[in-house]
Amino acid sequence: MGQPSGVGAWLAGGVPPSGSYGEASRPAVSGRPAGSAADVELGSQVIILVPNVRFQTRLSYYWGRIIEGVQEELEERGIGSILITEQGTTRFASLINPRGVMGLVGVGFISYPVLLEIRNLGIPTVLIDHEEPLVPTDVLSMNNFEWMRRVANYLIGLGHRRLQFVGNLTYSRSFYDRWFGFRAMMEEHGLSTDGQHDGLLTVRGHNRSEMTEALEPMLQELQREERLPTAFACANDSIAICIMTILARMGVSVPGDVSVAGFDDIEDAALSSPTLTTVHVHKHDMGRRAVEALLRRVQQPASPVEKVLLTGELVIRASTGAARDDG
Amino acid sequence: MGQPSGVGAWLAGGVPPSGSYGEASRPAVSGRPAGSAADVELGSQVIILVPNVRFQTRLSYYWGRIIEGVQEELEERGIGSILITEQGTTRFASLINPRGVMGLVGVGFISYPVLLEIRNLGIPTVLIDHEEPLVPTDVLSMNNFEWMRRVANYLIGLGHRRLQFVGNLTYSRSFYDRWFGFRAMMEEHGLSTDGQHDGLLTVRGHNRSEMTEALEPMLQELQREERLPTAFACANDSIAICIMTILARMGVSVPGDVSVAGFDDIEDAALSSPTLTTVHVHKHDMGRRAVEALLRRVQQPASPVEKVLLTGELVIRASTGAARDDG
Repeated sequence: MGQPSGVGAWLAGGVPPSGSYGEASRPAVSGRPAGSAADVELGSQVIILVPNVRFQTRLSYYWGRIIEGVQEELEERGIGSILITEQGTTRFASLINPRGVMGLVGVGFISYPVLLEIRNLGIPTVLIDHEEPLVPTDVLSMNNFEWMRRVANYLIGLGHRRLQFVGNLTYSRSFYDRWFGFRAMMEEHGLSTDGQHDGLLTVRGHNRSEMTEALEPMLQELQREERLPTAFACANDSIAICIMTILARMGVSVPGDVSVAGFDDIEDAALSSPTLTTVHVHKHDMGRRAVEALLRRVQQPASPVEKVLLTGELVIRASTGAARDDG
Repeated sequence: MGQPSGVGAWLAGGVPPSGSYGEASRPAVSGRPAGSAADVELGSQVIILVPNVRFQTRLSYYWGRIIEGVQEELEERGIGSILITEQGTTRFASLINPRGVMGLVGVGFISYPVLLEIRNLGIPTVLIDHEEPLVPTDVLSMNNFEWMRRVANYLIGLGHRRLQFVGNLTYSRSFYDRWFGFRAMMEEHGLSTDGQHDGLLTVRGHNRSEMTEALEPMLQELQREERLPTAFACANDSIAICIMTILARMGVSVPGDVSVAGFDDIEDAALSSPTLTTVHVHKHDMGRRAVEALLRRVQQPASPVEKVLLTGELVIRASTGAARDDG
């Protein structure tokens, strides 16, 4: 749940010198100098880079499942892998012998300087759940726009008209795309998003306890002013669980008074009280699919860069229900 | 440029019974009944379905290049193809022996009933530039959101502050995604899209002459009220060319007074006067990539449905320039 400084850097946008992967200054895969025998053996290895930010660890129910998928797919294909989880320096390049590396799978947020070094080393790269417009690479992601659009459609279908999105829009590209999906469906139903609570769209906190502390005064304010929405669409499950904790403290019934939906389907979502309606992300498949995308890139270095969006599943549990009559 | 009735049907959204391709009621590929020798031979064929709407013909500079890409990739892989361009009936199913078909590539808009029939026949399917939430299939598309976002970023970087999007938002999913990309970048620069001209977001017309006729009074109105934007971001090149035709008639200099940008990079874009700034879509690669996606689906029928978004290239030509000082 952390927001490391600079995490919103992708928002800067901009036009890269070329959107075509193979045209960059890095050497073509086939043009690499022949290495020693040891190099050739190492060349069959893939680096899995997991920066130690935002709880992107192997133990995370979200990132952990993705990393497992990457490792399993590589194993089944007889390709070795090295998991790099710490990154105390941006001098990533000095650690790596590019001749020994077949490719790199980046999991989650990776800073611009590190991506630039990887590009300059000429290592074929696929990023999961992150993208950097100035260093175009293939990207694997959940179809965030589409599935948050469907969450909103589901809630509106239950009769809700006052819906509030919760999540810091600059936190990640995924959050941003989920916000746009939410707005898209609101607009398709003729509902305005002008009345969204600004604080809930910029909320910060590095863990659930900080997040709950930040969210509580805003929800109290909404309750005091009798502007509490009848449904919250949250940018992820952790935020949704914090919202439910606060609503319980405030004596607001979920889903009797207010419905709450999350996104990601982490294990906690099925264990929360009430159990959380959310979008299942095929985390394991996403990891596997990233390996496929990487091997494709190794084989076809000059084909246009692509972003692969995986489908999700709406998982309806106990935290959502019909809007009250006055909703 | 046509807007056949019902083309906005995808806007309805909705939640499909399952987002996972292989879980649908259609028989698994491996479970097909063994056919005769003739069937087996036919089974190596791929149907390329191009409904005869919206000028989606082989002769089109846009769709034609995509279809060529599909055909070439199939040919190189030794897979036969049948191009079906007419579709006078929705009883598509009666024409097809599913045992004879390896898969289907749909190019552009294909109606919901036809997609449902294809699904019920159990034919692995990839759609290019169209999607139907209720019949989930793999989809190949241009990264419309991202690249219209960059068009807007480029125009704002030239000093433009009064930007107008032009294109019917319900015409196609691509147009809709381009509109959201435009808004995203406007908002990132703190510019409002509240002042967009409603008529320019709902403009209709089946060809350039009808389109020009529909657009002309709106641009004249804007000029009369001295509300002419300093830059138009158009949903595609044909619309941009119509806008330039009208501005020329009105005595407005492009790009001296007003900049105009398109999208798609059809051949006309390089031949227009002035030549048109646009986004190059890798049409040929998109066709080829669709075949790759189809073969992947045939081999992995149960993996999660995916949407593959190809990168574009910003092509800067003569129709855009710095905003006037009073812009």
